[in-house]
Amino acid sequence: MNVISYRPEPGEFAWTFGGVKPVRMVRPGDVLELWTEDCFAGKVRTPEDLVSRVIDFPFVNPQTGPFYVEGAEPGDTLAIHFISIEPARDWAASTTVPLFGALTSTAHTPTLQDALPEIVWIYEVDKIKRTVTMHGARSDYSVELPLDPMHGTVGVAPGAMEARSCLVPDAHGGNMDTPEMRAGVTCYLGVNVEGALFSIGDGHCRQGEGESCGVAVESAMNSVIVIDLIKGRFTEWPRLENDDSIISTGSARPLEDAFRIAHVDLVNWISAGYGLDRIDAYQLVAQIAESPVANVCDPNYTFVAKAAKRYLPRGEAYGGIREELKELAAAYSSERN
Amino acid sequence: MNVISYRPEPGEFAWTFGGVKPVRMVRPGDVLELWTEDCFAGKVRTPEDLVSRVIDFPFVNPQTGPFYVEGAEPGDTLAIHFISIEPARDWAASTTVPLFGALTSTAHTPTLQDALPEIVWIYEVDKIKRTVTMHGARSDYSVELPLDPMHGTVGVAPGAMEARSCLVPDAHGGNMDTPEMRAGVTCYLGVNVEGALFSIGDGHCRQGEGESCGVAVESAMNSVIVIDLIKGRFTEWPRLENDDSIISTGSARPLEDAFRIAHVDLVNWISAGYGLDRIDAYQLVAQIAESPVANVCDPNYTFVAKAAKRYLPRGEAYGGIREELKELAAAYSSERN
Amino acid sequence: MNVISYRPEPGEFAWTFGGVKPVRMVRPGDVLELWTEDCFAGKVRTPEDLVSRVIDFPFVNPQTGPFYVEGAEPGDTLAIHFISIEPARDWAASTTVPLFGALTSTAHTPTLQDALPEIVWIYEVDKIKRTVTMHGARSDYSVELPLDPMHGTVGVAPGAMEARSCLVPDAHGGNMDTPEMRAGVTCYLGVNVEGALFSIGDGHCRQGEGESCGVAVESAMNSVIVIDLIKGRFTEWPRLENDDSIISTGSARPLEDAFRIAHVDLVNWISAGYGLDRIDAYQLVAQIAESPVANVCDPNYTFVAKAAKRYLPRGEAYGGIREELKELAAAYSSERN
Amino acid sequence: MNVISYRPEPGEFAWTFGGVKPVRMVRPGDVLELWTEDCFAGKVRTPEDLVSRVIDFPFVNPQTGPFYVEGAEPGDTLAIHFISIEPARDWAASTTVPLFGALTSTAHTPTLQDALPEIVWIYEVDKIKRTVTMHGARSDYSVELPLDPMHGTVGVAPGAMEARSCLVPDAHGGNMDTPEMRAGVTCYLGVNVEGALFSIGDGHCRQGEGESCGVAVESAMNSVIVIDLIKGRFTEWPRLENDDSIISTGSARPLEDAFRIAHVDLVNWISAGYGLDRIDAYQLVAQIAESPVANVCDPNYTFVAKAAKRYLPRGEAYGGIREELKELAAAYSSERN
Repeated sequence: MNVISYRPEPGEFAWTFGGVKPVRMVRPGDVLELWTEDCFAGKVRTPEDLVSRVIDFPFVNPQTGPFYVEGAEPGDTLAIHFISIEPARDWAASTTVPLFGALTSTAHTPTLQDALPEIVWIYEVDKIKRTVTMHGARSDYSVELPLDPMHGTVGVAPGAMEARSCLVPDAHGGNMDTPEMRAGVTCYLGVNVEGALFSIGDGHCRQGEGESCGVAVESAMNSVIVIDLIKGRFTEWPRLENDDSIISTGSARPLEDAFRIAHVDLVNWISAGYGLDRIDAYQLVAQIAESPVANVCDPNYTFVAKAAKRYLPRGEAYGGIREELKELAAAYSSERN
Repeated sequence: MNVISYRPEPGEFAWTFGGVKPVRMVRPGDVLELWTEDCFAGKVRTPEDLVSRVIDFPFVNPQTGPFYVEGAEPGDTLAIHFISIEPARDWAASTTVPLFGALTSTAHTPTLQDALPEIVWIYEVDKIKRTVTMHGARSDYSVELPLDPMHGTVGVAPGAMEARSCLVPDAHGGNMDTPEMRAGVTCYLGVNVEGALFSIGDGHCRQGEGESCGVAVESAMNSVIVIDLIKGRFTEWPRLENDDSIISTGSARPLEDAFRIAHVDLVNWISAGYGLDRIDAYQLVAQIAESPVANVCDPNYTFVAKAAKRYLPRGEAYGGIREELKELAAAYSSERN
Repeated sequence: MNVISYRPEPGEFAWTFGGVKPVRMVRPGDVLELWTEDCFAGKVRTPEDLVSRVIDFPFVNPQTGPFYVEGAEPGDTLAIHFISIEPARDWAASTTVPLFGALTSTAHTPTLQDALPEIVWIYEVDKIKRTVTMHGARSDYSVELPLDPMHGTVGVAPGAMEARSCLVPDAHGGNMDTPEMRAGVTCYLGVNVEGALFSIGDGHCRQGEGESCGVAVESAMNSVIVIDLIKGRFTEWPRLENDDSIISTGSARPLEDAFRIAHVDLVNWISAGYGLDRIDAYQLVAQIAESPVANVCDPNYTFVAKAAKRYLPRGEAYGGIREELKELAAAYSSERN
Repeated sequence: MNVISYRPEPGEFAWTFGGVKPVRMVRPGDVLELWTEDCFAGKVRTPEDLVSRVIDFPFVNPQTGPFYVEGAEPGDTLAIHFISIEPARDWAASTTVPLFGALTSTAHTPTLQDALPEIVWIYEVDKIKRTVTMHGARSDYSVELPLDPMHGTVGVAPGAMEARSCLVPDAHGGNMDTPEMRAGVTCYLGVNVEGALFSIGDGHCRQGEGESCGVAVESAMNSVIVIDLIKGRFTEWPRLENDDSIISTGSARPLEDAFRIAHVDLVNWISAGYGLDRIDAYQLVAQIAESPVANVCDPNYTFVAKAAKRYLPRGEAYGGIREELKELAAAYSSERN
């Protein structure tokens, strides 16, 4: 097993998907131990560190990568299996950001109204108890919430010679902000350019569905992934798989279009991959889908659509590649312990 | 305890919220044993019963009611507590309907394309095993799914002298199609007219989130509810409460507006009802909300936004009226057994 | 020629389409001389008359009618030809309304932000010069704008046993707020109930496209219309016709759905009515449509789609009924002078 | 006067805004005589040249440029004044493209339905008569339409280190597809990168508002522009100015967000540039805006919002730079004749 450890130096982060030179070459089957900075580039550390003061746009949401995957060509699919995602600090931060978020007017849904107040919340992170603690900024109230670490941003270089801001989710992945991107999940991404050029970042200790205020409980992360390559098969929109479910995603505006993309993809996946007629797959999805909304604040909104495997005909996603990745993950974990 | 049993005669159903005379007078504290017909008015019973053939629009989605609640005045809130919701038949039906559903063009999202094929699926309902069984219409595949009965449509007469089709969800409730409307939940609805004039219908044996094809596993239901009245306090958008969560709803297009309505309401509910400053409530909702999409197919789309009570400051929804309703429900249930 | 003059008494206005008893019986070919109150029910007369103070919701946007058209049955089309629309006063009013309008959050696009300031603008109306004069409320600036009178609200009782607020535009017409509803235009509306039950109101001295602040230059109007009936032919969405163009409308959210409805209807109208293959009609519409947005502030947004007759194959809308209505209009006008 | 003539060689086109090296250095005040290829890269020439056959995605909508403007720095505004836009051929092409356009499901508004038929229409272009002639593909009908040449795509390199497909309109301009981009207009674009790096392309002989089928009457163009630079003043969203109007644009989804962006920008422009209080500017825009929709088919939809100068307080856009550009244009034109 080839294990690569990588912690970016300051100045080594990527701020876009596409248009950036790779930081490392990796191979299918490699395990990567990665450190990712938080979405604030580590600059929000106290209640005084307002985003509008300390962040120099567009240097927000730094990504660790991109990695060049040997052998990856347009038309292939990259599989990224998350072995572990662990907060790298004992605190985390959330904020409001002026004219950003789901419950305010924004740059893309502008009104003539004033912005909401700008606030920072610093959370305590307890990796033993597996909690984060919120303290009210203007209320005398504290509450422990479960730690549920995830990556908000996972993606590859987009197609059509584009480079996209790391704030954007789209067909190449990117800033999807779904809590489903937990340890144990396998993420499938269509390869658009040679080497795939994937990056990850934007660790969240947890987030609510929709990420209403636009910011989760943001933290640097130590994450371990193992990657693999499915040759000659493309994946239009990012897909995820865990032990229980296959999961399609869609990122678009308005939000019903994100829903449509994810659910049409799920119908097609079940139909093509599990042998159900498409209209029967449509009926089945209508009765079994779980469809947690991921984000309603980013430049595109993201939905995921989940189908429990126990309700599907016998079948395997991507030829069962996830089983191999789980074995590699198990081998890595036993070696470390 | 006053128990009223009511099964509508043919011709006694309501097809709108508002504009219909009440079928019964009821009082706060009354228990109602109700029978509701399925959304097809019972006309889809075999694979040959295509909706376009057997349904005479607008006679679709019949409601049991309306009931006139003595003492209910505009500005009050009606509480409907669901004691039980049980399928009234051992089969249920689902269909595609031409140009209706989330994954097709529709009358309100029209294109120049042809409609999808029209299909009926008849499900078996096993109340002992608590399952429904789907059989593929064009595939040789059958699958058991958990029975999870709910009412798609619960509402009162709307304000502004309107009468709305029973297919529409809006501030008065109506066809919200959320799986959260299960036995055990308490639903709060603002009263717009004297007597409130509430109705229920559209029983589903189960549905997926978003109700993609526009139709759930539709069934007649035997349902028992107990009602109560909160005087002098209005509820802008329907709210639900169960043992674990308080739940706001929003119905609108585009889907992000349904999300906004539900989540602004949840922030306001937590702020006003549990004493958190509003910006702290916004932050808390951003990290804890569970936001299952209800429907993405009706004339308005519906989102619900849930906050787990265990993360909220000490407090009670609507002065704890739900506890009284649960006691009435328990008394009713023990009397029946 | 049968001429009916009607000015509603206080208390005689309609506040919904549907659910209201007719004020008069009329016959195809009748000319109606009507007085309509402004959308504020005449209560906004000075800068101190803030809507939030003087208006008692839902008593806003009063309609003159409904009129029962003898012989009108579901499945027919009502034609309303506007002979003249003239301001009934020498002043008019516009306002902002808290949380209403296109450039603010609203009840249906809510945010946590504060409302914009509430202001009244009183315009002078000069029927000789054909101008209205705006005076800045917070700026030392006055400007004359062309008088261009229109009715914001024209509709019939909706189908499906509904009653809709006069603030709502939908398939039954209603509050479409399009400047195309000028003197000289013929409006076609599908009949949903016996007698059609049409009303008109909401006179505007002028408005910008989209009606950004939610309120036009609002005025009482003296309007003269002549009506006719097209038996056995239904009109799905309101259509208009003037000397130059045929005009489809669509009312929905999001705004692209209003666009789709209007343009699909225009393609179908050209294809069915003028004998072009539908794909050629699509191509033609893509190159010739003029598509002024009507409102982006009402419960549904409204688009109109215009096709200039000079680019269409030889043909006539609705069998050329407009020519007969123009002759009646000319006869009426010459009789009055 | 410095006049630069440039006709790109095959292989010299740009397919993105951003991420491309400049083809020429130019200076403020330079006149550029440019040739632009049509959106099909010249490959659709007969009815047999279906887009799905002859186009190799993403090589669609080629741009002439980018040009590096000496002295242009982030925070400046680039002014592009269109002296002339003339079809370079005596024919032009339009098509349907599978799953692209406003009246079909698409990649971003997917459904389970089949695509519409794929058709090519070849138009005759008569530069003397100033007409284009459409011939029905499936109908025996031909019609002459006015020639009204414009550029669908005008833009600079975007900010945030992005590179965007030439099919996308956004804050950097790009594929806005507005008929307002005619000869005689001045276009203002915020500079995001050193040199601005602007390109133009996508000539249309004419298009309808909304560009319903997704494709206009597409043609190669000979266009002459003169450019200038406004130092130290940024332009958030593209603005246009002609003799009669100032024009804001917005590109987003859903369509109401494009409307909001354009109209908030217009209110702000009038308020900051012409000295009206912002709430008075809002009122004025509500009554005078002309708001032709540009496209409802591209990855973002585009609205423009126009205010007639004759209704505005005395003032000048961008310090009156347009007058200087018109003088340069006049000098160029007299020199050529």
